Amino acid sequence: MEDIKIIAIAGGSASGKSSIVEKIKNYFKDDLVVVSHDNYYKAHDDMSFEDRKKLNYDHPDAFDNEQFYEDLKKLKNNIDILMPTYDYKIHTRSDKVIKINAKKIILVEGILVLYDKRIRDLCDVKIFVDADSDIRLQRRIIRDTQFRDRSLESVLNQYISQVKPMHELFIEPTKKFADIIIPRGAENLVGIDMVIKHLEKMIED
Amino acid sequence: MEDIKIIAIAGGSASGKSSIVEKIKNYFKDDLVVVSHDNYYKAHDDMSFEDRKKLNYDHPDAFDNEQFYEDLKKLKNNIDILMPTYDYKIHTRSDKVIKINAKKIILVEGILVLYDKRIRDLCDVKIFVDADSDIRLQRRIIRDTQFRDRSLESVLNQYISQVKPMHELFIEPTKKFADIIIPRGAENLVGIDMVIKHLEKMIED
Repeated sequence: MEDIKIIAIAGGSASGKSSIVEKIKNYFKDDLVVVSHDNYYKAHDDMSFEDRKKLNYDHPDAFDNEQFYEDLKKLKNNIDILMPTYDYKIHTRSDKVIKINAKKIILVEGILVLYDKRIRDLCDVKIFVDADSDIRLQRRIIRDTQFRDRSLESVLNQYISQVKPMHELFIEPTKKFADIIIPRGAENLVGIDMVIKHLEKMIED
Repeated sequence: MEDIKIIAIAGGSASGKSSIVEKIKNYFKDDLVVVSHDNYYKAHDDMSFEDRKKLNYDHPDAFDNEQFYEDLKKLKNNIDILMPTYDYKIHTRSDKVIKINAKKIILVEGILVLYDKRIRDLCDVKIFVDADSDIRLQRRIIRDTQFRDRSLESVLNQYISQVKPMHELFIEPTKKFADIIIPRGAENLVGIDMVIKHLEKMIED
């Protein structure tokens, strides 16, 4: 059986994770599949819409790590999965599932993919993308006001009440579990190239 | 002409730099030569022995970066150098020089090798070895009391008056310039393996 590798890419909100994931994905194409932790937000059908709107998506408890772990174990063993999806408009899991076929490289990404020990232990390489907090805030303001149609006030309120404290409490401490840390996010071409070359060598061997 | 690569390994005192350098050196053997920044401490023949004893070896000004830069440029261009050496017993440069032949990989290491921009710009890969400050203090206590015959009091005094403030002022901020950061120092086998594979690929290409 093929030796399937799981690579985790963690890092704070707007640290540059997605751009790095995109670069790695474009490089490995059909040898790689991305599984975003965001798809594994817990279902909240038992709560009212008003309560669901107040959910804290930056807290580790927001994720269904049971299913995430079981799915990653399957992929590692070359078994296809039906990945859940999450609908932010209704603030709960959607009815849609996405069939994911195992590939040589399973790239898992998300703010808290290094938080759960069982999931960390499944990963062959653990990467943390680092960026200064002011740079992350700046990127988040641009992204959320320009592309997600939110007011500056709401972005800043959410940042200070949720994003920042959760980052400091839960995300930042997982940096310690990383095999390597990539500073300066997506701009860091040498660091990204290093990761790509390493993965290439891994799947060649 | 051969394409010579300069790799920099920076990191705080007792962060695990030397063990990582040792592992990389053992892997590449004759294709690699190590140039320690410590050999480039400035000569202090103009000072009395008593004054020289008070030198702050953790400050960027302690290094002769002019010569370090010129020597690295020569090695990069496949020109041999005569590397200075430093004698800590007399607290100044010794008369001895060591002939260094350029190799495929020039590995430069030291607490402040990422401090000087000209030197950073010469480096093909910049690595920062990271370790918690309490772990570094613990290692330093063991190393200096057991192997360098120093009293615990003198180690702690030097740590708090010199090592810690210089680390925070000058060493820690250079982490930002790194292409990758390796957490947990020499224990981090996946991170070190990643560096080795990357260098291997670099010199193969």
